[in-house]
Amino acid sequence: MTKEEARKLLEEMGETYKLEILDELPDEKVSFYRQDGFIDLCRGPHVPSTGRIKALKLLSASGAYWRGDERNPMLQRIYGTCFPTEEQLQEFLRRLEEAQKRDHRKLGRELNLFIIDETIGSGLVLWLPNGALIRKQIEDFWREQHLKRGYQLVYTPHIARDELWRKSGHLELYSEFMFPTMQIEAHKYLLKPMNCPFHITIYKTQTRSYRDLPIRLCELGTVYRYERSGVLHGLLRVRGFTQDDAHIFCTPDQVKDEVKAAVQFALFILRTFGFSEFEVKIATRPEGKFAGTLEGWERAERELQEVAQELGLDYELDIGGGAFYGPKIDIFLRDCLGRRWQCSTIQLDFNLPERLDVNYIGPDNKEHKVVMVHRALFGSMERFMAVLTEHYAGAFPVWLAPVQVAVLPISERHLPYATQVAERLQAEGARVEILAKSEPISGRIFDAEARKVPYMLIVGDREAQSGTVSVRERGRKDHGSMPLEQFIDWLKPQLKPPAVE
Amino acid sequence: MTKEEARKLLEEMGETYKLEILDELPDEKVSFYRQDGFIDLCRGPHVPSTGRIKALKLLSASGAYWRGDERNPMLQRIYGTCFPTEEQLQEFLRRLEEAQKRDHRKLGRELNLFIIDETIGSGLVLWLPNGALIRKQIEDFWREQHLKRGYQLVYTPHIARDELWRKSGHLELYSEFMFPTMQIEAHKYLLKPMNCPFHITIYKTQTRSYRDLPIRLCELGTVYRYERSGVLHGLLRVRGFTQDDAHIFCTPDQVKDEVKAAVQFALFILRTFGFSEFEVKIATRPEGKFAGTLEGWERAERELQEVAQELGLDYELDIGGGAFYGPKIDIFLRDCLGRRWQCSTIQLDFNLPERLDVNYIGPDNKEHKVVMVHRALFGSMERFMAVLTEHYAGAFPVWLAPVQVAVLPISERHLPYATQVAERLQAEGARVEILAKSEPISGRIFDAEARKVPYMLIVGDREAQSGTVSVRERGRKDHGSMPLEQFIDWLKPQLKPPAVE
Repeated sequence: MTKEEARKLLEEMGETYKLEILDELPDEKVSFYRQDGFIDLCRGPHVPSTGRIKALKLLSASGAYWRGDERNPMLQRIYGTCFPTEEQLQEFLRRLEEAQKRDHRKLGRELNLFIIDETIGSGLVLWLPNGALIRKQIEDFWREQHLKRGYQLVYTPHIARDELWRKSGHLELYSEFMFPTMQIEAHKYLLKPMNCPFHITIYKTQTRSYRDLPIRLCELGTVYRYERSGVLHGLLRVRGFTQDDAHIFCTPDQVKDEVKAAVQFALFILRTFGFSEFEVKIATRPEGKFAGTLEGWERAERELQEVAQELGLDYELDIGGGAFYGPKIDIFLRDCLGRRWQCSTIQLDFNLPERLDVNYIGPDNKEHKVVMVHRALFGSMERFMAVLTEHYAGAFPVWLAPVQVAVLPISERHLPYATQVAERLQAEGARVEILAKSEPISGRIFDAEARKVPYMLIVGDREAQSGTVSVRERGRKDHGSMPLEQFIDWLKPQLKPPAVE
Repeated sequence: MTKEEARKLLEEMGETYKLEILDELPDEKVSFYRQDGFIDLCRGPHVPSTGRIKALKLLSASGAYWRGDERNPMLQRIYGTCFPTEEQLQEFLRRLEEAQKRDHRKLGRELNLFIIDETIGSGLVLWLPNGALIRKQIEDFWREQHLKRGYQLVYTPHIARDELWRKSGHLELYSEFMFPTMQIEAHKYLLKPMNCPFHITIYKTQTRSYRDLPIRLCELGTVYRYERSGVLHGLLRVRGFTQDDAHIFCTPDQVKDEVKAAVQFALFILRTFGFSEFEVKIATRPEGKFAGTLEGWERAERELQEVAQELGLDYELDIGGGAFYGPKIDIFLRDCLGRRWQCSTIQLDFNLPERLDVNYIGPDNKEHKVVMVHRALFGSMERFMAVLTEHYAGAFPVWLAPVQVAVLPISERHLPYATQVAERLQAEGARVEILAKSEPISGRIFDAEARKVPYMLIVGDREAQSGTVSVRERGRKDHGSMPLEQFIDWLKPQLKPPAVE
């Protein structure tokens, strides 16, 4: 029906929220669906008949602010699902249950990984000691690998003057995601939503020759972006997060090699963390306005595809799905439940070098614009921590586990030997905890299992006399007694990140 | 004269700035000094006669905003100094010159350590690759040492709701140093000037027993504090800086051991970075209002002194110089020019545990207030970087140097051997750069000296044939030729932080 007819109908029905939606529709005609007495403004499509629905389940109901803004009234949102067969529904519910057990928000609290506290603010993460220790392992590995690959580390502030954000175009194009300004004396400051303008400032501290390129600046940079409170979700949708960010400044001729190295680097990193299934998506030039030249785009799009082909990666083309400033490659991983997560992004940028005048001196002794490559491998520390937690259901690989070995003396008189074992392991670089509370041993094993400690060493008279340990692996795997040194030989390679291709 | 007489005089003289100062003086009578025709409102004291001044030097003149605020008019500030003897003046000027050569702002730019860019904002530091690499070495060492000593690492956001800052008392007592609020939906947010309320939030995620204490939370936490633009100075007075912060939550009985361990830790850290002269100051209870109990203060003040005595440290008492919330120990170091720098602070806090209800369950099964110890060893990464840079005049110890070894092939045909040497060194974990530009070798040596690279290995025909390197140490020290493996044996221990007591 026409919008006018629709308005009349909705007014009669008293559907104030639908009226609001109607007002925002650009279409001249809109569609309604009717099921018995229920009439609803909806673009569709719907199943042609309810008879097709053979298995139905209501999942949950929750309050949700209208349009996700907590200043708006709260509505009831009812979640449900349906399938053509009961078996499919059951399979779905089984996976759902498995996913819920792995929910990083639940495990985050149980395992002391992180909290989000409303007194501090929605979408702001506090990393608790266990989560922080895992993050440290990840960051140490990340920095070491970057330095090895010719990246240079930098640190930049979390705020900058509006002047910088005006020049970079963020105030014009991105301000809805930026926190409000802070006036200090004669100037206005804003929290950074991105690190790029800072890295460009660093690039521009010197005149760069083509012989200096590529220059790769990297930073674990914490950025702040406004998201409506209604859409925030654990570590996956937050207002403050640390990007594992880098910007590569290179000549057009270097783009392909740099992108290829970045994709390989991303796959290396993700494989090290135990992921093996990847999908790649290449987004190309959008309709309408775009930065750079048509030839520049065509060459880059061709090269991105060549990179994917040369690396033997299945890729999907997202025609016209790129941002106006350049094409990109996204890498998705699949976790052990088959869920797809986006992590790495490698994004070309023809715009900022123009806009901020980012140059190098070519062999012709003239100034040329660099090509900038923005890239993040994990995406953010928060997002990657969520993915890792759900993939491993909190049972992190040994090299990441906050406590790697728990030593459990059977009774108090075994404490000296337990201490000796712990010190021997610590000397090898292991993170060890002695669980020697007065509780019975079974309770302490239960506790270590709940904390997902990879190895439990139980020591009593027999072990103390023979210099052995009774080894139990998390998940109730009993490995029996073995000499301490044999256990150490077994443990040692697990203390380091696994070597992958 | 009386303030009224003074006003009349200053008005006649047209001294508008002095009039402003006069208005703010609480005194009923004020003093003037007269020297020939020059009359000045001044509290004094002055030398009784200009005859005492035997050696005088005007040092510089610069523009300075009235009251350090850039919105005010700019005045001329003239710096000068004088001494009773010419020798004393000359000695002072010599030290001044030495200090200027070491000025971290000058070296910061020359050695690519950091920049402060007005487009980004006054007092906001961008760490360039060389500075960032040094910072990484410092931070890696810092984190490793903290974990070894039973500290737990955390990460917390850079902003929080005003609610948190109201509860903590910062909005009431510290707001002049805080950046303005940012309104997001229904809440106001502020940049953090301190990390304490976040660490307290983390402490309070669990009920803590006396058996769990002490709990030591540490973070390299970047804080933002408003300082007037006129007082900003290089890395020493900034608006954003990273504290090497920790908060120790303990029982009153644990305070002494914890403070002692913290002082020892501070001295260990500072000695590792090459400092050996320290002074200690203990600040005690101020007049008037104070947090906690009188006995609590007396015990703590006694214990702080015992710690200094037991560690054989000379200390000075700053009677009444403490903050209202608790006594503290400050550690000052002297650099190679004998200049005194404040770095470490260990500050007791009886206030926040009361205010924010930070408790533990005692052996009596009742709630007790913890004692909080705030402490920073470096003070901040920025401050410490300034001190290090000036102390070493940019010639950082080998383990901190961004590039540790430069390999210089005499001509292009020695590049393969130079590469081999570099790879051998890199395999030992050294940071190596090959300087192989077409420039003559003397120019490249000059360049490496200017960059303060600790070792230069010059390789030509003789070296390539005999597997040797010609070793030059920065500061023009020639060590002659030696087998590469001999150089490596010499270098290796220098790649790690020195072992100190």
